Amino acid sequence: MNSALRNAYFIFSHSLNPTSNPNSFPLILSLHSLQSTAVSRLPLRIKRQQQPYRSPRSSSFCSSSSMAGADADAPAASSSVEKQFVDFRAQLEDSGSLRDRIRNVAMEIESSTRLMQASLLLVHQSRLAPEVLEKPKAQVGLLKSLYKRLAEILRESPGLYYRYHGDWRSETQTAVSLLAFIHWLETGELLLHPEAEEKLGLNESDFTLDVEDYLIGICFMSNELPRYVVNQVTVGDYDCPRKVLKFFTDLHAAFRMLNLRNDFLRKKFDGMKYDLRRVEEVYYDVKIRGLSATRD
Amino acid sequence: MNSALRNAYFIFSHSLNPTSNPNSFPLILSLHSLQSTAVSRLPLRIKRQQQPYRSPRSSSFCSSSSMAGADADAPAASSSVEKQFVDFRAQLEDSGSLRDRIRNVAMEIESSTRLMQASLLLVHQSRLAPEVLEKPKAQVGLLKSLYKRLAEILRESPGLYYRYHGDWRSETQTAVSLLAFIHWLETGELLLHPEAEEKLGLNESDFTLDVEDYLIGICFMSNELPRYVVNQVTVGDYDCPRKVLKFFTDLHAAFRMLNLRNDFLRKKFDGMKYDLRRVEEVYYDVKIRGLSATRD
Amino acid sequence: MNSALRNAYFIFSHSLNPTSNPNSFPLILSLHSLQSTAVSRLPLRIKRQQQPYRSPRSSSFCSSSSMAGADADAPAASSSVEKQFVDFRAQLEDSGSLRDRIRNVAMEIESSTRLMQASLLLVHQSRLAPEVLEKPKAQVGLLKSLYKRLAEILRESPGLYYRYHGDWRSETQTAVSLLAFIHWLETGELLLHPEAEEKLGLNESDFTLDVEDYLIGICFMSNELPRYVVNQVTVGDYDCPRKVLKFFTDLHAAFRMLNLRNDFLRKKFDGMKYDLRRVEEVYYDVKIRGLSATRD
Amino acid sequence: MNSALRNAYFIFSHSLNPTSNPNSFPLILSLHSLQSTAVSRLPLRIKRQQQPYRSPRSSSFCSSSSMAGADADAPAASSSVEKQFVDFRAQLEDSGSLRDRIRNVAMEIESSTRLMQASLLLVHQSRLAPEVLEKPKAQVGLLKSLYKRLAEILRESPGLYYRYHGDWRSETQTAVSLLAFIHWLETGELLLHPEAEEKLGLNESDFTLDVEDYLIGICFMSNELPRYVVNQVTVGDYDCPRKVLKFFTDLHAAFRMLNLRNDFLRKKFDGMKYDLRRVEEVYYDVKIRGLSATRD
Repeated sequence: MNSALRNAYFIFSHSLNPTSNPNSFPLILSLHSLQSTAVSRLPLRIKRQQQPYRSPRSSSFCSSSSMAGADADAPAASSSVEKQFVDFRAQLEDSGSLRDRIRNVAMEIESSTRLMQASLLLVHQSRLAPEVLEKPKAQVGLLKSLYKRLAEILRESPGLYYRYHGDWRSETQTAVSLLAFIHWLETGELLLHPEAEEKLGLNESDFTLDVEDYLIGICFMSNELPRYVVNQVTVGDYDCPRKVLKFFTDLHAAFRMLNLRNDFLRKKFDGMKYDLRRVEEVYYDVKIRGLSATRD
Repeated sequence: MNSALRNAYFIFSHSLNPTSNPNSFPLILSLHSLQSTAVSRLPLRIKRQQQPYRSPRSSSFCSSSSMAGADADAPAASSSVEKQFVDFRAQLEDSGSLRDRIRNVAMEIESSTRLMQASLLLVHQSRLAPEVLEKPKAQVGLLKSLYKRLAEILRESPGLYYRYHGDWRSETQTAVSLLAFIHWLETGELLLHPEAEEKLGLNESDFTLDVEDYLIGICFMSNELPRYVVNQVTVGDYDCPRKVLKFFTDLHAAFRMLNLRNDFLRKKFDGMKYDLRRVEEVYYDVKIRGLSATRD
Repeated sequence: MNSALRNAYFIFSHSLNPTSNPNSFPLILSLHSLQSTAVSRLPLRIKRQQQPYRSPRSSSFCSSSSMAGADADAPAASSSVEKQFVDFRAQLEDSGSLRDRIRNVAMEIESSTRLMQASLLLVHQSRLAPEVLEKPKAQVGLLKSLYKRLAEILRESPGLYYRYHGDWRSETQTAVSLLAFIHWLETGELLLHPEAEEKLGLNESDFTLDVEDYLIGICFMSNELPRYVVNQVTVGDYDCPRKVLKFFTDLHAAFRMLNLRNDFLRKKFDGMKYDLRRVEEVYYDVKIRGLSATRD
Repeated sequence: MNSALRNAYFIFSHSLNPTSNPNSFPLILSLHSLQSTAVSRLPLRIKRQQQPYRSPRSSSFCSSSSMAGADADAPAASSSVEKQFVDFRAQLEDSGSLRDRIRNVAMEIESSTRLMQASLLLVHQSRLAPEVLEKPKAQVGLLKSLYKRLAEILRESPGLYYRYHGDWRSETQTAVSLLAFIHWLETGELLLHPEAEEKLGLNESDFTLDVEDYLIGICFMSNELPRYVVNQVTVGDYDCPRKVLKFFTDLHAAFRMLNLRNDFLRKKFDGMKYDLRRVEEVYYDVKIRGLSATRD
């Protein structure tokens, strides 16, 4: 949205004389110059009559009995309302533009992970060679710099990490899943939480990788394993199913330790068993045909 | 839930010798004694073989080509996975029980606001007398103490205000709407944000009233105005519509200043115009019949 | 939730003289002291005028014609309404807290079955050894004690078993499926309904295992069979498919006897045929390769 | 469904010799004569071979290690499975036909309440005359007899009230709403729970009116009030809104006492305020036009 337009706002003046015709609403809407956005957050107000808000004889509000104390400070109160909404306007502007900046970085993260994902497709098409991982790994530096920008943006607003969490969390889960997949392809090991943080440059004290995001990312990674194992068997690596099953069984058992609530992570984990089952079936296929015989 | 049960967990040990028969998966799940909950989060492990995870000749994972560097630390990594999930288990436990505590306070807040709402019904049934507001106002102290408890719970986990915000925000919006309605009945003025914070005891530095929650609460309050004005005219207060309309028009104009996004607040504000229209119609009714003449 | 708060309630008194100004609705809501919860359910009432509810000349309601007999007991009726809602409040409180207690036990049952499930994972990873079943079986005592608590809670409210059935039935179905799986692993036999009841301590006259829950639990168990048979073949037990198929075929035929309605049980049973088919395929695989020959 | 067909069932015989060719499944499905339903629930079984279920040399199940004790009673167990499913078949038949009988009565109740509703439409078309209520009241006797039948059906199955509750509860809620509306038209009073029970013949100890059903019925009744009050004003009864509002305000306040959970009743009650508001608006209309002046 055009930020000049967003910064334009209305100044209004209250009808201060209750005896004037109340049918005419003297609300004055004045569109502030679109150019002078720099000044626009100052609580500008048009000069207003200094008359009491309500007449002394009706000191209580919409009531036949009398309630005292409300009249003296009425104009002050009115002006406070204005001031408050001018402040809110600035605050909502600020949080809106903060969100926009966060979303922009999140979109760049998504774009980077899409490239990683595309270049990782190659691992399904041949037996794994170290050079296949070079392209996706080349994105890690960019990812790290994007998370650095994200951390800087959020550092300006301490304590608001979780306020805007929803704006980058799904991108982060995808990033974790890809990093964990690459790490597993290289080492056969699970990418640990601090390792994931380090790869994303999130290992500093004030901006960390949310544990649930990490775990969901690991679930996403495990969704890739059945496909990987099928394709590896196709290209002749009959020992792959055994290794993957070993890793996956341990991972599944580790997740089992967690007491998951009925949330998104629980749902993702519940789906993991179907992937595990598929890997078991592939291992079964190679075993029953004696294809892994050289290993035994 | 039985916390001893929740704290029970599994310790597993990996098969460390890949040259052993891969048909026997020596993953041993050992259920920790349900009684020893105090110790249960310590990373207990059964004695494990100190052999390397993978043999040197299969250093790369599911690959015919060699990738170095993964073997030396494999046992360490395995043990790290265990440790990590033991830690996660504890962390998820903690955040789960934190959420439970927050929800419990939120439920008490809801219960308290329900009582306020019930006793506020009386303002629709007669001309306003100060004593009618005594009962709902008597809840404010309780509300304040509940928010104090909430603040104390959240103070234990700095920076997590917005992580759990969804667990109490709708209750807070209702509380603001009731406090603002009472304040308006007493003074004819809008309850300002800092005033609302003060009434809820949220005016301390580390636990504040979210501006959007405040604004949504004010929208909720304005939903009550048409009903109030209709009932006040019914009981003979023909000057009420004029006063309410004045207040409402200013409030609506103030909201107009805000650049609202397509979210819940925007939706609530969009509904405000129908309430304003109804108040205008009631004012029209009393004016056209000359019923407000005696007051003016 | 704070029970003092929950027990707080309103006492209201009707305007008893219809000829008085109808603009003043003397409905008085009186918030009972939050401290005196012990007394709070007694039908406290503020002193009320002993005048008839409606004047004799308007004996019918919203009607110009006369309908007799309603006037004499109007005040009594009014007081009955109060009393009735005070009673309802207590009853809804009671049933709400009963439900909470049931849900708490159900959550512990779920937690216990989750532990059983986790330790049962091992049966998929090696040829079955009796000691593998020791861990899941160790939970059975806990389960039994939890069902004993559930039975005690429900014994307080005779005849309400099915009112709250939905609050524990899915946990019970899972428990049955695990017990039946363990029983089958040990004996090769179907866990019978009275045996399941006995294991859960439900074999007393007043709290039994619902037949549909038992049958759904058996369906859940049969979902595990394809995975089990695949993994057993993988670890070299080529005779397993034949035995499982025999058991499964009989079980499926037994279910076929039942005239199932279009409900959850029917849906679960309909899914059983896919599991049966998978076991048949595995048996076919081992037969066609002559792998089961050594056993026969 | 044809009950003869439903009672037809299958008798199956197990293959008792594990050394016979397991590919031939000697499951014998024999369709029992459709005529002999009276005998069909006896656990008929064809004569079966008295050979052991599994051969002594494979005493454990799908396992290389030995587990004792399973063989001796295998034939007995097999026959128990058959017997159990024959029993289940009978039980599911019984509960199915019980449900059919309940549904039949519920449909007659619905038919009767539809007639009441149709004849009650007249109250919206003229000022209330006692004879208008005669037609709907004439259904009450029929309703009572239907509930008597329902009670008799359920008396056969003690403790199963709530098992089948869902099959008649919505009809009961409608019946309560109509009885309460008629009662209110006649007396201006709320039909109390015991009065509703008495009208439905449910005031005996073993079959009662569920409190939530009663309360939902009262909510349904209150949905009729705005329409009624509009139509009464149309036909010239300007005092009706005042009386209805008085009744409705008290009823609403009484409901407010209840601590409703997030369920259907809560949702219905939440909707009540819109009906109350509408009645307030109608009262406002007659007041502002001085139409109720004669009463003041």
